[in-house]
Amino acid sequence: MKRRHFLQAAGLGLATTALAKPAIAQSNPAINWRLTMSAPKSLDSVYGACEVFGKRVAEITDNQFQIQVFAAGEIVPALAVLDAVQAGTVEMGNTSAYYYWGKDPALAFGSGVPFGLNTRQMESWLRHGGGNELLQDVFASFNCCGIPMGNTGCQMGGWFRKEINKVDDLRGLKFRIGGFAGKIISKLGVVPQQIAAGDIYPSLEKGTIDAVEWIGPYDDEKLGFQKIARYYYYPAWWEGSSNLHTLVNLAKWNGLPKPYQAALLAAARDAGHWMTGKYDAGNPPALKRLLAGGTQLRPFSQEIMEASYRAANEVCAETSADNPRFKKIYDSMVAFRGDSYLWWQVAEMSFDSFQVRMRART
Amino acid sequence: MKRRHFLQAAGLGLATTALAKPAIAQSNPAINWRLTMSAPKSLDSVYGACEVFGKRVAEITDNQFQIQVFAAGEIVPALAVLDAVQAGTVEMGNTSAYYYWGKDPALAFGSGVPFGLNTRQMESWLRHGGGNELLQDVFASFNCCGIPMGNTGCQMGGWFRKEINKVDDLRGLKFRIGGFAGKIISKLGVVPQQIAAGDIYPSLEKGTIDAVEWIGPYDDEKLGFQKIARYYYYPAWWEGSSNLHTLVNLAKWNGLPKPYQAALLAAARDAGHWMTGKYDAGNPPALKRLLAGGTQLRPFSQEIMEASYRAANEVCAETSADNPRFKKIYDSMVAFRGDSYLWWQVAEMSFDSFQVRMRART
Repeated sequence: MKRRHFLQAAGLGLATTALAKPAIAQSNPAINWRLTMSAPKSLDSVYGACEVFGKRVAEITDNQFQIQVFAAGEIVPALAVLDAVQAGTVEMGNTSAYYYWGKDPALAFGSGVPFGLNTRQMESWLRHGGGNELLQDVFASFNCCGIPMGNTGCQMGGWFRKEINKVDDLRGLKFRIGGFAGKIISKLGVVPQQIAAGDIYPSLEKGTIDAVEWIGPYDDEKLGFQKIARYYYYPAWWEGSSNLHTLVNLAKWNGLPKPYQAALLAAARDAGHWMTGKYDAGNPPALKRLLAGGTQLRPFSQEIMEASYRAANEVCAETSADNPRFKKIYDSMVAFRGDSYLWWQVAEMSFDSFQVRMRART
Repeated sequence: MKRRHFLQAAGLGLATTALAKPAIAQSNPAINWRLTMSAPKSLDSVYGACEVFGKRVAEITDNQFQIQVFAAGEIVPALAVLDAVQAGTVEMGNTSAYYYWGKDPALAFGSGVPFGLNTRQMESWLRHGGGNELLQDVFASFNCCGIPMGNTGCQMGGWFRKEINKVDDLRGLKFRIGGFAGKIISKLGVVPQQIAAGDIYPSLEKGTIDAVEWIGPYDDEKLGFQKIARYYYYPAWWEGSSNLHTLVNLAKWNGLPKPYQAALLAAARDAGHWMTGKYDAGNPPALKRLLAGGTQLRPFSQEIMEASYRAANEVCAETSADNPRFKKIYDSMVAFRGDSYLWWQVAEMSFDSFQVRMRART
C-alpha cells in the first residue's frame, strides 16, 4: 500500500507534497525508494557502502529522500538485481554489471574485464575517458542508468588445495569464479562454476569444487577458506579492479527533481570512496592474520599469466567481432590502458617499489 | 556591501529566508560563500575541482547555496588561504596544508609527508585509519575544519638541467620545492627555494635556480619547463601522493544547516574524485608529448633515494621529539603504511607489473 503510494508519487512527477507549499519546497518532496543488492550483509564493505549512500542522501535532503537497503535475497535474488531495476520492481539496485554478461557481454566493462584497468585507471576512464558515457548506452538498453559506486581494488586469485604451477595443472579444475572471466579461463581447461556466496564454503569442503576465488583477504577470511585450502594465489588477473554500480530505473531517475539527482550522484561518489578505503584499510590486517595462521601465498606463474592473457585477448577479439558495442568499449578501454601504464610505471610504481623495499628492511 | 550582508545572514543562523516559509524550507536558506584558492586557474585540475564542487553544491541545494570560487591572488594571496579562513575573511579556502608547516609541522600530514602514503593509502588512512580525526584536531587550532578534496597522485621529481647521479651532485643545488620536503632535502645539501607558480619559469630560465619540482606531466608541460631543462626525474619521494583540503571556518561550519554540511561533504568527495581522475587521464598523454619532444626521463638513483629516506626519518624523529601532536599523527601514518605495503606488494603491484611488462611487448 505504502509502496504503491510512493510509486504513484514518482509517476506524477513527485507533486504530492507541493500543492500547499511555496516554490522552494517543490524540489524537496518526501519519497521513499528501495535499493536491492547482489551482496549479502556479510560483505560489509559493499553493504556498508549502500548504507553510507542512503544515510548521506537522507542527510542532504533533510530526511525527505529515504532509501531502504535490502541485502541479497531479502526481496530480490542476488543475481536478479538488473532485472528487478529494469522492470521497475524496485527503483534502485546495487550490483556488479559483469554478472549479467550473458545478456550482453558489453555489461562486463561496468565491473572490469580480465587484464583491464587498475582501480584508479578505472575511476579515471569512467569519468574522464568516456567510459561512463559508453556504459550508459548499455544500461539504457536495460531501462537503467548506472552510477559507479566504489571499487574493491585488485582482488586475489583465490584459494587452491594444491599448488598450480603450469597451465596443465589447470585442466579439469573445478573453479568457482564470477563473471566474464569464467568464459576466458575455460579456454585453459578450467571448468568454471557460478556459486552463490553462502554455498561456496561447503562446496569446497566437500570437494564439489577444487578451488575458489572470491574477493580479497578481508572478505575471504570471513568465509573461512583458509581452513580448507592452503594456497592463496595472486593476483586475480580477471579483476585488477572491480567496480560496483548503483543502478536506477530510467523512468524513476527521470522523474526525480534535479536536486535529488545531484544528491544521488554526489552521495554515490562519497559512498564509493568509503568502500574502496574500507577495503584498503581492512585487507592488510586480514592478510597478516591469514599468514600468521599458515596460509601460503603463491603468485600465478608467468606461464599461467601469459596463457591467461592470450586467452583474454582471444575472447575479447571474438566478442568484438560479434558485438559492435562490446568492440567500441573494449577499444576505448585498451587505448586508455596503454597510455596509462606508460605513465604508471614511472612515478607511481617506482615510488611504491621503493617503499616496499624499505619496508622489507625494517 | 553584498559581502557584509551574507556574513550577517550566516551569523544570524541563516534565518533570513525562513520566516514566511514552512518548516521544510528552513533547512534550505539562500546563502553565498566565497572560496579562495592557493592554486591559479592554470592548474585546471585543482581549480576545476573547486568549480565542480561549487556547481554540485548548487545543484543539490536547488541553487540556494552558492559558492564563488577565487583563484590564487584574486582576493587572498596564494599562501595565505589558511590565515584568511582562520580569520573568517572568507568562509572557505582550498589549499595544501603543508604550505603552513611553519605554523605547525603537523599540518604537513594534511597533504602528505616525504616517503608517506600513496594516493589510495592516503584516502583510506584519512577515512578509515583515523587520519582525518587526527587532522581535525590540528585544523581546529586554526579555527577551521578541513574536508579532504582530491589528490594529484604521485608527483614527478622535477626538472634538472644536469644529470644528478650521486648525493654529492645535490650539494648547493638551488631547487624550487614546496612544503615540509624543503626542510628534509636541505639535509642533503640542497638549498630549497619557495617560489610562486608564476615566477618559477623565469627563475629557472635565468639560472636563479638550478632545478624545479612542480607536479607532474600534465601541469608541468603547461609551465613549459621542458623548453629549458632536459632531465625529468622521478619519483617525487616527497609527494608519493598530495592531498588537497577545502578548509571551512569553524564558526561558519557550525552555523550551517545539517543538510548543507552533508552536501558539502558529499560534493567534496565528488570533486576530489573528479580531480584525481583528471590527473590520471591527463598525465599519460602529456608524458607522451614530453618524451616525443626530447625530454629525458631519469629515475633518482638508489643512493639518492636512500639518503633522502634517512634524512626524512631523521627530520620526522626530531620533529616528533618536539611536537607531541606531530608524533601522534606520524606514528599513526607509519603504522598504516607498514601494514598497507605488505598487502600492496601482493595483488596490486603484481597485477600492475604484469600489465606493464605486457604493454612493453606490444
